[in-house]
Amino acid sequence: MGTNGEIEPIGSEIYFDSCATTKPCAEALSAGLEAMRYSWGNASSTHTRGTEAAFKIREARHAVADALSAQPEDIFFTSGGTEANNIAVFGAACKNKKQGGRIVTTAIEHSSVLDSVNELEKRGVEVVRLVPDNKGHISPDDIRSAINPNTILVSMMMVNNEVGSILPVAEAVKAARKNAPRALIHCDCVQAFGKIPISVRQLGADMVTVSAHKIHGIKGAGALWKKSWVHIPPLFYGGHQENSFRPGTEATPAIASFGAAAERMCSRKSIGERLSHITELHEYMIKGLLQIDGIVINSPSDGLPYIVNFSTCCIKAETMLNFLSERGIYVSGGSACAKGEPSHVLKALNLPREISDSAIRVSFCGDNNKREIDAFLNVLKEGMNTLAHFC
Amino acid sequence: MGTNGEIEPIGSEIYFDSCATTKPCAEALSAGLEAMRYSWGNASSTHTRGTEAAFKIREARHAVADALSAQPEDIFFTSGGTEANNIAVFGAACKNKKQGGRIVTTAIEHSSVLDSVNELEKRGVEVVRLVPDNKGHISPDDIRSAINPNTILVSMMMVNNEVGSILPVAEAVKAARKNAPRALIHCDCVQAFGKIPISVRQLGADMVTVSAHKIHGIKGAGALWKKSWVHIPPLFYGGHQENSFRPGTEATPAIASFGAAAERMCSRKSIGERLSHITELHEYMIKGLLQIDGIVINSPSDGLPYIVNFSTCCIKAETMLNFLSERGIYVSGGSACAKGEPSHVLKALNLPREISDSAIRVSFCGDNNKREIDAFLNVLKEGMNTLAHFC
Repeated sequence: MGTNGEIEPIGSEIYFDSCATTKPCAEALSAGLEAMRYSWGNASSTHTRGTEAAFKIREARHAVADALSAQPEDIFFTSGGTEANNIAVFGAACKNKKQGGRIVTTAIEHSSVLDSVNELEKRGVEVVRLVPDNKGHISPDDIRSAINPNTILVSMMMVNNEVGSILPVAEAVKAARKNAPRALIHCDCVQAFGKIPISVRQLGADMVTVSAHKIHGIKGAGALWKKSWVHIPPLFYGGHQENSFRPGTEATPAIASFGAAAERMCSRKSIGERLSHITELHEYMIKGLLQIDGIVINSPSDGLPYIVNFSTCCIKAETMLNFLSERGIYVSGGSACAKGEPSHVLKALNLPREISDSAIRVSFCGDNNKREIDAFLNVLKEGMNTLAHFC
Repeated sequence: MGTNGEIEPIGSEIYFDSCATTKPCAEALSAGLEAMRYSWGNASSTHTRGTEAAFKIREARHAVADALSAQPEDIFFTSGGTEANNIAVFGAACKNKKQGGRIVTTAIEHSSVLDSVNELEKRGVEVVRLVPDNKGHISPDDIRSAINPNTILVSMMMVNNEVGSILPVAEAVKAARKNAPRALIHCDCVQAFGKIPISVRQLGADMVTVSAHKIHGIKGAGALWKKSWVHIPPLFYGGHQENSFRPGTEATPAIASFGAAAERMCSRKSIGERLSHITELHEYMIKGLLQIDGIVINSPSDGLPYIVNFSTCCIKAETMLNFLSERGIYVSGGSACAKGEPSHVLKALNLPREISDSAIRVSFCGDNNKREIDAFLNVLKEGMNTLAHFC
């Protein structure tokens, strides 16, 4: 059994794409299956079938709250990270819509934040998108300059999902509290959750987004944590679920599995043990990559070791992804392959075109090992030799 | 194995609350479990793990489309019926926001429609809520009078979830097409789907809402069908999933199980066979209820036989629900028990207080049988005798 407790080995496949999604762990599978087979009542029903479903949801809420050092009543389950990010962004803007205002964010947020602020910009809200350096670092000085008294929302991710850079959220909180008394601070922690310890109290933000399927839960659940005194309107309307803040019959299987995954993956001990294992893998991978002619590392050296973004500089990412996938190795492109365009993150890094076009993201989970890295490096070299002729 | 194909018998429990939610059928369980264990990739990933998840979603889209006699590309998966209803209502209003306009709906819609239009009313949209008679019938004359050229949206459910009345959607479509050239027509088919055949082509509406967990799928998936030429803005923003109309990593387990449940439950043959079984149960139940002194039937005689709403006229619904639940019989109150207030539907029916306060909803699924009705009627009589002393 791997460190994530899974019971089905991937076999000869190598899955290096855990920032896209993760394989459900045994605990998440078991909780999801239990909710599907037995706790299938409507949690709003007052009879036993309902109250047992409500109990499963309450357990999950406690588990996710514990994982964030938060209060259970401040956790609101959503369908996933995208919805939670939208609730935070639109909620903050709608709350302040009569006063106008500025949103400060970065150019390397997830599209669920960026597309939301783009929409708000069309509606007249001022948006400042901080630009990173070419390793994905956001400058604390830029943050301090951008946050003014008119700022209503600061939305900054904790870890960038494509290159792994860690963003200066603490600086953003400090600047917002000092310069923007009515600003709400939102932190998209989707890629950080389960990888580094998060305490909402220490973080100092007002809203935090997390997602189940990035921490070995099943797809279909995420959560927004918000401080109890933060009152923002919901994104949509209906029943009284989630304290009337997020209506709709609860997705008990996904929520229960989210709780089980949070319990397994997010204790300080579990995070710490995994982080040292991943740090070893990261060093081993970087060392191996740098021995291959032409490889350039795009990730920062002080980033989260779970993510290694690099470029072959000669093979288009989609071509290499196919080559690897055909050999059972699963990674991501650093670009939106279908359109042949670099992603908004790689564009923001302002990398030369041959680097952004050939960018590959490897992302680890606790089950990966050095043997897989060896195999990956061999196939990568083979791919570079084979495919280079077609460039 | 019951007619829904489930493998775990409820045992001595009697579940008469299938309009609240249904027990997942064997096919839905199996599809959900498969997606959790094997097709757990991110459907947006271009490698094999991603494409196999995308394939499961494509299969489900075809199954739900087939069940509605619709095109797969017009099906948009959501987290459930509440979200789909919100997309339809807010989408229609936002599309026309510069022109103002009227929304015509009924006073007995689901709260996800009513709370959405309430919110739009606060923002300046005119809302007409058609009032039913005391059996939940909406008058076609009222519809014709309400729909004027200024109407931008007509939202009407096909079957009311509390009393089972069938609403005159065909009349609404006719009136809207005649009097309101720019109106979009939305039909919440959540309670009708799988119970009566639905063909979106024959229905003539522009948007239709359906939900997985009401047809023995697992919770966490619903869908909005919309005509290909209907362009409305999304409810939230982010990735390119669902043709950029509903972003966020797809909840593959819930979606795959939705497809499996639709395939099993929604063929004309399956609907027809179940409907004749349920019609027998309905007659048997009504006959039994009418033999009990004091019982009043609230459901219309021409309603959907899946739902029997009745009142004891002497025992508060929440008291009777607890009595039944303690004896393993699960039904719903016709009132929001927690608050001791009748639901908005029973209020709209304008029933005497002793009737609305004591209203009980029995709702069937294909697995129910006459033996369960006998047992239910006995416990109900026992409850009426025992509890009447405390009234």
